[in-house]
Amino acid sequence: MKYTQIFSKTSKTVPKDEEATNAKLLIRAGFIDKTMAGVYSFLPLGNLVLKKIETIVRDEMDKIGSEILLPAISPKSIWEQTKRLEEIDVMLAVRGANELSRKRNSAEYILNSTHEDVLTPIAQKFLTSYKDFPQAVYQIQTKFRNEPRAKSGLLRGREFRMKDMYSFHTSENDMKNFYESVKKHYLNIFREVGLLNDTVISVASGGDFTKDYSHEFQVKCEAGEDTIYHDPKSDIYYNKEVLPKEHAGFESFKASEVGNIFPLKTKFSDLLKYRYTDEMGEKKPVYMASYGLGTSRLMGVLVEKFHDDKGIIWPVNVSPFMVHMVSLSGEKSSVSSRVEKIYKSLQERGIEVLLDDRDVSAGQKFNDSDLIGVPNRLVVSEKTLDKDSVEIRDRKSGEVRLVKLTKLDKEFIK
Amino acid sequence: MKYTQIFSKTSKTVPKDEEATNAKLLIRAGFIDKTMAGVYSFLPLGNLVLKKIETIVRDEMDKIGSEILLPAISPKSIWEQTKRLEEIDVMLAVRGANELSRKRNSAEYILNSTHEDVLTPIAQKFLTSYKDFPQAVYQIQTKFRNEPRAKSGLLRGREFRMKDMYSFHTSENDMKNFYESVKKHYLNIFREVGLLNDTVISVASGGDFTKDYSHEFQVKCEAGEDTIYHDPKSDIYYNKEVLPKEHAGFESFKASEVGNIFPLKTKFSDLLKYRYTDEMGEKKPVYMASYGLGTSRLMGVLVEKFHDDKGIIWPVNVSPFMVHMVSLSGEKSSVSSRVEKIYKSLQERGIEVLLDDRDVSAGQKFNDSDLIGVPNRLVVSEKTLDKDSVEIRDRKSGEVRLVKLTKLDKEFIK
Repeated sequence: MKYTQIFSKTSKTVPKDEEATNAKLLIRAGFIDKTMAGVYSFLPLGNLVLKKIETIVRDEMDKIGSEILLPAISPKSIWEQTKRLEEIDVMLAVRGANELSRKRNSAEYILNSTHEDVLTPIAQKFLTSYKDFPQAVYQIQTKFRNEPRAKSGLLRGREFRMKDMYSFHTSENDMKNFYESVKKHYLNIFREVGLLNDTVISVASGGDFTKDYSHEFQVKCEAGEDTIYHDPKSDIYYNKEVLPKEHAGFESFKASEVGNIFPLKTKFSDLLKYRYTDEMGEKKPVYMASYGLGTSRLMGVLVEKFHDDKGIIWPVNVSPFMVHMVSLSGEKSSVSSRVEKIYKSLQERGIEVLLDDRDVSAGQKFNDSDLIGVPNRLVVSEKTLDKDSVEIRDRKSGEVRLVKLTKLDKEFIK
Repeated sequence: MKYTQIFSKTSKTVPKDEEATNAKLLIRAGFIDKTMAGVYSFLPLGNLVLKKIETIVRDEMDKIGSEILLPAISPKSIWEQTKRLEEIDVMLAVRGANELSRKRNSAEYILNSTHEDVLTPIAQKFLTSYKDFPQAVYQIQTKFRNEPRAKSGLLRGREFRMKDMYSFHTSENDMKNFYESVKKHYLNIFREVGLLNDTVISVASGGDFTKDYSHEFQVKCEAGEDTIYHDPKSDIYYNKEVLPKEHAGFESFKASEVGNIFPLKTKFSDLLKYRYTDEMGEKKPVYMASYGLGTSRLMGVLVEKFHDDKGIIWPVNVSPFMVHMVSLSGEKSSVSSRVEKIYKSLQERGIEVLLDDRDVSAGQKFNDSDLIGVPNRLVVSEKTLDKDSVEIRDRKSGEVRLVKLTKLDKEFIK
């Protein structure tokens, strides 16, 4: 892609109304735009990163479940059945925006903040015999929460992207085994995006979902809103919210909760009288669990973790591009034509390249390249071409190498 | 994928509260589930079809624009600026669902039914010089409308999937040229999904968007909500809503509007005082156009067009699977192991196979296969294996062939 086609532009100005590093950098680099507190547009660069994250999540979830797409709005009656309408303090509702609209249809609907209440009645239609279990389905979807304060950029949104999976089982034991396997698949995701070493699984409260403990995937991060304690004896991590008062010798750190999984057990099947028929023809309660993972929040956490004073440093698997190509052609059309040739040959190899084709100074191109944070900067100039070479700079280490044009096909191999 | 993993089940019962053929068949076949009028869940089968449609749309749009993701909710102030808050009769708003939620945040937001009003202020930040034009961005997103009556299944939803693209230009001429090119790309989409011969471009009103005419992509369809007239002299199609009273000799037909494109010209740039700087340093108005295409509606139209009394007949490019494999193994484990081998060899070739692994009668498997509507049914039984063959039946023509196992690798090549 050429820089002049990416719609957004970089900005030197730090957004006044943003406190969070992730929002500041992502806005300055042209990845996102703020519509209101906690609500952002993903511009072409940001959409590329979000898609990469969601593809990693999808590929991992496809190993254990089937993708679905549940509705964002639902009738109030669904939530009245599960008695959660008055319980959830971030729940939003939808109604006609004006007289004209309410004249057409005066009903008010719920904007689903989670989907146990919507999905369980569907499962109840299809999964009725012990032969139908286990099953797991997931979706990747925009979700909404009525957040009073949304000051952390992509770390806490009124509107955000989320993967949510739900599993259905005939016994607590089967549920627990699957629940444990999901932990491993989650860790695969954190490994892929470059966060495995900074991710811990912590014990947390079940919130509006279960009286049991839930488990969180917490990424160590100064900007995170949670405090995690580590018990060195048992090697267990605890969210501060569930910790007994005495905790001498516990190490604590700030973290951001990217995933949260809940052993729902029979909470929803009891509420909705959801029973399956076992081998003996007897009715038994269905065991459930649910598994959330915030994909847009993950994008924010990655920026919080991977940046320096010049800009973002994307891990290679989620970077919008593999190579940021900077052409210093000046007036030389001979350089321009070589640049175009290299650009095309990289693209033909399936390498995602951003080519800065603007007529601006080298300094501006370098600064913008550092800000945007693509792993490899590739400079083509009269000077490098005189040596039949290009210059490759590693965004993370700053290491610079001259690479012969004849050897460029050995570069950027994953 | 194996049938026992697809979460849903087929049903012989016609849903009582559905009038539309697309909803009846898609629900009976287990592609979708109804949450309320005009709001459906896409179950694994339905999600596969929706994804295929959206991938076709995305691939075509990527040729002319960059993908973005705009927010679903926005502050009222945005819509007050464009004075459309009181104009649009299907507009929805979002607020805290209960006392608890409104205590946290009492604000009310707009649930965007279209995105000109949200995107134009963003473009205004980035596209300021004549050098920045033209630009086109698009998104594929869930949208919401306060429909009073939603009785047509996926043809008219309160919540639905849509692709919307927006283009920005320095002149009316540039806008018009791009607008015409989009028509060609839209027709490529209709060709890919198998609807080209039944799709016409009709002249329609500009609705809430422009005083000019808009253009609709109408698919001939008895269940469609629009009436289209054809003027045989000029070979122009008109939506009934814009037709002058006299139309002797005009042929008319029912159709469903899958796409609608709008030459917005300077409507939004005038409203928002959006000007660019031209080569001479002068401020000039920005020309815009927008381009909608309903991806979930397209799914509904496909079912309306392609079905018989036994079920759906998916066009190959949008079918959830290429092959529906039916094993009639009975008690023979020798058949089962051959079935598994054929299933795996097809998958290794990248062919999407649904294997009916249930322990039910041949008749039920055949009926469900007809209902689900995958293009090729592949039967493996003792009888076919005695002839070293499998039976392949074309869902559309009903034609049945015996194919030697040794020649199976020549089948299902796109």
